[in-house]
Amino acid sequence: MPNKTHLLRQLENISGKDNVLSSPEVLKPYSHDESATDEFNTMPVAVVKPESTEQVAEIVRLCAEEGVPITPRGAGTGLAGGCIPVEEGIVLSLERLNRRIHIDPENMSVTADAGISLKQLYQVVEEGDLFFPPHPGDESAMLGGIVAANAGGARAVKYGTVKHFVRGLKVVTADGKILSLGGNLMKSSTGYHLMDLMIGSEGTLGIITEVTLSLLPKPGTIMTMVAPFKTVDEAISSVLPVLNLKIIPFAVEFIEHSTIRCVERLLNKNWPVKSGTASLLIILDGPDEDRVLETAEKIGKELENHGALDILIAEQREKQAEILELRSMIYEALRPGVGELYDVCVPRSEIGGHVQFIHELEERIGVPLPTIGHAADGNLHSHAMKYRLEDGEMKEPIKDFAEKNSLLEREIFADVFKRGGVISGEHGIGIIKKNHLIANLGKDAVDMMKAIKQALDPNGILNPGKLF
Amino acid sequence: MPNKTHLLRQLENISGKDNVLSSPEVLKPYSHDESATDEFNTMPVAVVKPESTEQVAEIVRLCAEEGVPITPRGAGTGLAGGCIPVEEGIVLSLERLNRRIHIDPENMSVTADAGISLKQLYQVVEEGDLFFPPHPGDESAMLGGIVAANAGGARAVKYGTVKHFVRGLKVVTADGKILSLGGNLMKSSTGYHLMDLMIGSEGTLGIITEVTLSLLPKPGTIMTMVAPFKTVDEAISSVLPVLNLKIIPFAVEFIEHSTIRCVERLLNKNWPVKSGTASLLIILDGPDEDRVLETAEKIGKELENHGALDILIAEQREKQAEILELRSMIYEALRPGVGELYDVCVPRSEIGGHVQFIHELEERIGVPLPTIGHAADGNLHSHAMKYRLEDGEMKEPIKDFAEKNSLLEREIFADVFKRGGVISGEHGIGIIKKNHLIANLGKDAVDMMKAIKQALDPNGILNPGKLF
Repeated sequence: MPNKTHLLRQLENISGKDNVLSSPEVLKPYSHDESATDEFNTMPVAVVKPESTEQVAEIVRLCAEEGVPITPRGAGTGLAGGCIPVEEGIVLSLERLNRRIHIDPENMSVTADAGISLKQLYQVVEEGDLFFPPHPGDESAMLGGIVAANAGGARAVKYGTVKHFVRGLKVVTADGKILSLGGNLMKSSTGYHLMDLMIGSEGTLGIITEVTLSLLPKPGTIMTMVAPFKTVDEAISSVLPVLNLKIIPFAVEFIEHSTIRCVERLLNKNWPVKSGTASLLIILDGPDEDRVLETAEKIGKELENHGALDILIAEQREKQAEILELRSMIYEALRPGVGELYDVCVPRSEIGGHVQFIHELEERIGVPLPTIGHAADGNLHSHAMKYRLEDGEMKEPIKDFAEKNSLLEREIFADVFKRGGVISGEHGIGIIKKNHLIANLGKDAVDMMKAIKQALDPNGILNPGKLF
Repeated sequence: MPNKTHLLRQLENISGKDNVLSSPEVLKPYSHDESATDEFNTMPVAVVKPESTEQVAEIVRLCAEEGVPITPRGAGTGLAGGCIPVEEGIVLSLERLNRRIHIDPENMSVTADAGISLKQLYQVVEEGDLFFPPHPGDESAMLGGIVAANAGGARAVKYGTVKHFVRGLKVVTADGKILSLGGNLMKSSTGYHLMDLMIGSEGTLGIITEVTLSLLPKPGTIMTMVAPFKTVDEAISSVLPVLNLKIIPFAVEFIEHSTIRCVERLLNKNWPVKSGTASLLIILDGPDEDRVLETAEKIGKELENHGALDILIAEQREKQAEILELRSMIYEALRPGVGELYDVCVPRSEIGGHVQFIHELEERIGVPLPTIGHAADGNLHSHAMKYRLEDGEMKEPIKDFAEKNSLLEREIFADVFKRGGVISGEHGIGIIKKNHLIANLGKDAVDMMKAIKQALDPNGILNPGKLF
């Protein structure tokens, strides 16, 4: 670490005085992300906010020379501590790299600065009568961040996660070079897939400053269905029969009603069905209302054959928005009591078994584990709660939560490994899950990752302490 | 290079006496691939045919110890020299690793040995009432090879190339370790995307021995349309209006009639339309005949508005097969006269301009360049012919072809770079295109590739001499 005053002055020379922060109160928001624990929060030495790829490259060159670690940061909406800085390091915030977003209708793509938010992206894409299917959750997330984490979301069943939509990236390397990877191309077999290596690398191999994404034609209509079941097991078991109709819905979620109660209380709104203990939430897209309604009715019939107590089809935008709001606010509602948020992904065929295991664990260890999941893609979120839950309210604290949760963690991950799954479906590894990476992927695979890290960032200045 | 007899004996100990070839006449087929030039053909010291991943790993460990370079090989259907061995090296042929292919209907996936052919894959998938969209051409190609080259094909417009369908790989590393990358999972944000790095790495970073691919529900029906136009320019210009109908066809090809004449002669069959100088070939998939026919008619009307002289819709399987056979045999028909096969990919919006440039070049340099292309995904194949073409027949040789072709190559690639394109859309770089990689991607990107190669295969024993 060089002289701090000297470092700050040099950063100011690059990005301007107003764009280098160093007083503790303004640094604080940059010491954490949105994960449930504050255990890893760390104050950086400074935050610098470049406004161009060239400035990012200059900052990286400076830090490489001075040996100062850099943690790149988008909106800080991550859930694995991926953008938490290290002591003696700086945060390189992409928030001001947010001026350019350009739709290319002929190539059905959009090119945008890494600091453009998902919300801005959806708006511009909608205005262009086009469509970006993934919806990884919090719309304040920035594009660089969602690519760096290979974010997923509920809408990955039919169209895939973010990585399936990345066509090109501009990246600053650990030695401050600017690389354009991929391009506005639909095909390439031209050399190693460096772009795909950068996706999901959580800022440890390069800093993403610009993103080109594939778009699709905007679907004529989107429809949302909710079907309640007597048990969560029945809900999950009816996913496969739906897929066997040769229909791939846009999204298929399962939600236990005990979980949704917390959100009903928070928002003072009601989940549209009352019967049963769990719902399937299915979203369909298609060319027009008649066709999608026909599909929805076909699915409804199949769900009833498999125990659905009711079928609700929401066609109006407002009704759909309300249902999705309730679904999307689950983490928000639970968060004050969440000790750990799991993000496992198992083969689709293993979801039922894993959820059953979670329920047994809940009973056996005595920690509430409200669980929701992307039922058709195998990605589940169990929330280990520090408080007893009763009718959507948090009651007294769970005794010895920390010990119980480390037991939970071991058991949940062991079950996931047995089923051929991974510890992160969409949140990333960051700091929070890194101790489990070898257990999940094996030492040889992690050694290969470390060899790549060593080759591309020999001095370890890009987002140190993450992943492994 | 160790003592040859000693090496052969050790290989025989691993894979059995019958599975180690070393006499020149049996080695010859392993000295080349299907590319047009024989300039790079090289005889290996031996060919070994392991029958399991474990045997592959043993062979790699042996060769690593003895310093013997290994060139992995599938069916040898590549078009860039990617599986051509080096002198003093061996070929590791995956042809006997072809016993297991297993459909998993619940997870809509298939797991197969790397030596299973595309033909076998399509058959098993069809029997399972499922669907593997990519069709990279020659059906004798093996799965390991199509993944190693990130093969594409005509059917990539709607569903993407092979890389979009790979869920998991078993790979043997340069030090003979066996890694399972990915999994039967639809989502993962668990560490670097090593699997994506292996895809398209042409056997230089690891040897793929098993592949897990995503499948889709089998479409209810597939329909093929052909629309002739007065000029190829008009044909290409009407692709965008079709996409603007919010319809993404399964495949969109443009074919000049002067090119198809060669195939008509070879097969003694006729292209279904006679008028015009170029056709668009469009393939549609959908849930049932009525809906797809409705879509086809909508497209037909749009094409007529943009100058189509006729619209032919083929619904019967046999008629469709005949049209596709004519299309797919183009390389076969031209091959005896092809000096170089180009495989460039440009942004979709640049195809028209590039084809126009190809025609100007043809005139100016005096080399016939019959060109076909995947019109909606920007991937074009120009065939530099060593003979003058007249009504589909090859006539007298082009004088000074070699000099003219090196001029062509420079000009074609320069035009592609100007348009933001790449030198390979789907065939790979192999040996044949490696001298252009830096000009295409820049030295910094290629240096990054070399650093990765060095990190994962420090002794350079996996497929040396390829890519860079």
